[in-house]
Amino acid sequence: MAKATPTRPLRILGIDPGSVVCGFGVIDVNGTSNQLVEYGVIELKRRTDSFPQRLNEVFLRLRAVIERTQPDVCALETVFHGKNVLTIVRLAHARGAAMLACMQNGLEPVEYTPMQVKRSVTGRGAASKEQVRHMVQAILGITEDHRYLDATDALAVALCHALHGGAPPPIKTKAQRKGKRAAWAEFIEQHPEKIR
Amino acid sequence: MAKATPTRPLRILGIDPGSVVCGFGVIDVNGTSNQLVEYGVIELKRRTDSFPQRLNEVFLRLRAVIERTQPDVCALETVFHGKNVLTIVRLAHARGAAMLACMQNGLEPVEYTPMQVKRSVTGRGAASKEQVRHMVQAILGITEDHRYLDATDALAVALCHALHGGAPPPIKTKAQRKGKRAAWAEFIEQHPEKIR
Repeated sequence: MAKATPTRPLRILGIDPGSVVCGFGVIDVNGTSNQLVEYGVIELKRRTDSFPQRLNEVFLRLRAVIERTQPDVCALETVFHGKNVLTIVRLAHARGAAMLACMQNGLEPVEYTPMQVKRSVTGRGAASKEQVRHMVQAILGITEDHRYLDATDALAVALCHALHGGAPPPIKTKAQRKGKRAAWAEFIEQHPEKIR
Repeated sequence: MAKATPTRPLRILGIDPGSVVCGFGVIDVNGTSNQLVEYGVIELKRRTDSFPQRLNEVFLRLRAVIERTQPDVCALETVFHGKNVLTIVRLAHARGAAMLACMQNGLEPVEYTPMQVKRSVTGRGAASKEQVRHMVQAILGITEDHRYLDATDALAVALCHALHGGAPPPIKTKAQRKGKRAAWAEFIEQHPEKIR
């Protein structure tokens, strides 16, 4: 496991965004000791709510969490591979809402890929969600099993940020790692109008 | 062109969301007469801003537009086909921010597909952006060419909502039209946890 290098106590909010269940976890980091503050999920399963209403609820309830726990920094998981487009689109909306909840409270979220999160917590980028939960529980001394894996996932994101020393990480995409495709990915990002 | 059937003056805000340029257009609709109130774009091209900062700016500036123009209803374009995944993800974030700007002002956005918008304004679902601009200019008596097509696109969304009588439209996805795939698309939407 990587060593944590924060020099002062740091309160980190980790978010595992979703449009159905959105996990959040808050930890206090002091040197190499991590302490659980709070964790849970925002459930949005009510079918009576429209999609914009659900987004609004993600925003309002995350904002409430931030106001209650007053984190110093906020970390989000990027969740865009291996899912179908419909899911990706819904998730991206929810991530937008989560990002705004942070920004509206003066927190600029840092992002980690699922692989970075898993590797930080379990030492293996392809670890299962159950393995992540197991390690999160071990690290933070949690004894109960939360009903949703999203809650421990969010804690894993917070732990990942702690283990990165609380500094914004360089996210390497597949394209960036593959060198040649990097320029193209960057070009697309900077000139989306050219590929319409 | 479909007949408009609103019975009282209605102020409609149309939004063409984007993470680089976000168009907005406000019109007043009274019976079959449509009058331009305001239109323009939110430019977000500054490379110095991070993505969350740009999202926040979409949110803040759209909220300012809503507070200034006080629309009765808000219409958004769904923009998710024929683009690559990176673009879709960015757009979906921006749409989430736009939706929240509406929701935070008590407006629940209604959604139209690009095809519905184009068909409403030009009579043809596959019309070009230039053709849409031409028709929007003709309908609203606009003489100047705006620098961005996104501005007239946003007005087209507002006009589309006006021509639908100001009522929330039934959005038909490809899957829904194809019948058999409808059940599956709906199932995925309602049970995203099953396909993880």
